[in-house]
Amino acid sequence: MRSEVITVRTGDRPAVRDITGTAMEFVAGKGDGLLHVFVPHATAGVALIETGAGSDEDLLRALDDLLPADDRWRHRHGSRGHGRDHLLPAFVAPYVTVPVLGGRLALGTWQSIALVDPNGDNPTRQVRLSFLNG
Amino acid sequence: MRSEVITVRTGDRPAVRDITGTAMEFVAGKGDGLLHVFVPHATAGVALIETGAGSDEDLLRALDDLLPADDRWRHRHGSRGHGRDHLLPAFVAPYVTVPVLGGRLALGTWQSIALVDPNGDNPTRQVRLSFLNG
Amino acid sequence: MRSEVITVRTGDRPAVRDITGTAMEFVAGKGDGLLHVFVPHATAGVALIETGAGSDEDLLRALDDLLPADDRWRHRHGSRGHGRDHLLPAFVAPYVTVPVLGGRLALGTWQSIALVDPNGDNPTRQVRLSFLNG
Repeated sequence: MRSEVITVRTGDRPAVRDITGTAMEFVAGKGDGLLHVFVPHATAGVALIETGAGSDEDLLRALDDLLPADDRWRHRHGSRGHGRDHLLPAFVAPYVTVPVLGGRLALGTWQSIALVDPNGDNPTRQVRLSFLNG
Repeated sequence: MRSEVITVRTGDRPAVRDITGTAMEFVAGKGDGLLHVFVPHATAGVALIETGAGSDEDLLRALDDLLPADDRWRHRHGSRGHGRDHLLPAFVAPYVTVPVLGGRLALGTWQSIALVDPNGDNPTRQVRLSFLNG
Repeated sequence: MRSEVITVRTGDRPAVRDITGTAMEFVAGKGDGLLHVFVPHATAGVALIETGAGSDEDLLRALDDLLPADDRWRHRHGSRGHGRDHLLPAFVAPYVTVPVLGGRLALGTWQSIALVDPNGDNPTRQVRLSFLNG
């Protein structure tokens, strides 16, 4: 398994970052297999969504509606509402898997790999890319 | 990695389609490994749930409650509420992985592989089945 | 693929059980690859979250808020609200995948592998651990 860690800047506010380009470069020339994208963090997730057409902001809004960033949570430290950031990975898992064929991601036309980071306390995040040969 | 694409009819209304039978046929005779089921679409997901006992309809209802199909979303095109269809894959991911032992899916008694498609604008969907030898 | 099933006691009330230690032992000495953790049940999920700091209870509360355990669901049998237990795996999938490097889980500092079981009718659960060599 080939595996490497990249660093992604997510800034000091909730953010969705498209990392498809980096993933494409990582699998180029690697043949057929499975790409595993993993964030080794307890307050971030990875999603396969369309980016750049409004769904990035819609997703952050939906998370605010479904898991409010207020004081209701037991897990409290850092910024207000941080407890809900710790719930994110239960619903938006910290990994995705994507088939790779001939060194290319078999994504659909409108699918992108997006790092979802509601946590403004960590301006950079690590992402581990791994390739399993099929 | 062996990989193939099948087409599933989901119709012009929100639908949950059980594709376990097709997945079983795909892995038959393939030994031990991991089945990867992937939809290359930005408005569909794959879930492992019990089908045929009411949870299919319950899931569509829960999605309507949690991600209302109305005009609140920034991402707007197609039918009313289509923006929420674009959020679905962040919560119900467009892939599942299932262990395969001796050419058989290691699913539990009540688990089925279900294609979840809230989007009535696409009457058919593609599903990529891939098998990674262990 | 090496694969084995363990039994985890979850008790007669909704529970989140940390199984990271067992997973660490399972991958020890196995080199590089992917760990697949799978529950063959239709009313349980697996999450990668921080445990022991309140998020366990927060997750059970969030599930009660998002998927109320009442009589609204079509799927009815067992205890009151059991229909919502059947929706859990659509949102908290019954599997996770974790990279393994040199026989060690590549988890982040605050990540644990947690079995999520809202269903008090099943006091024990099976978990299948599988390792795919990379």
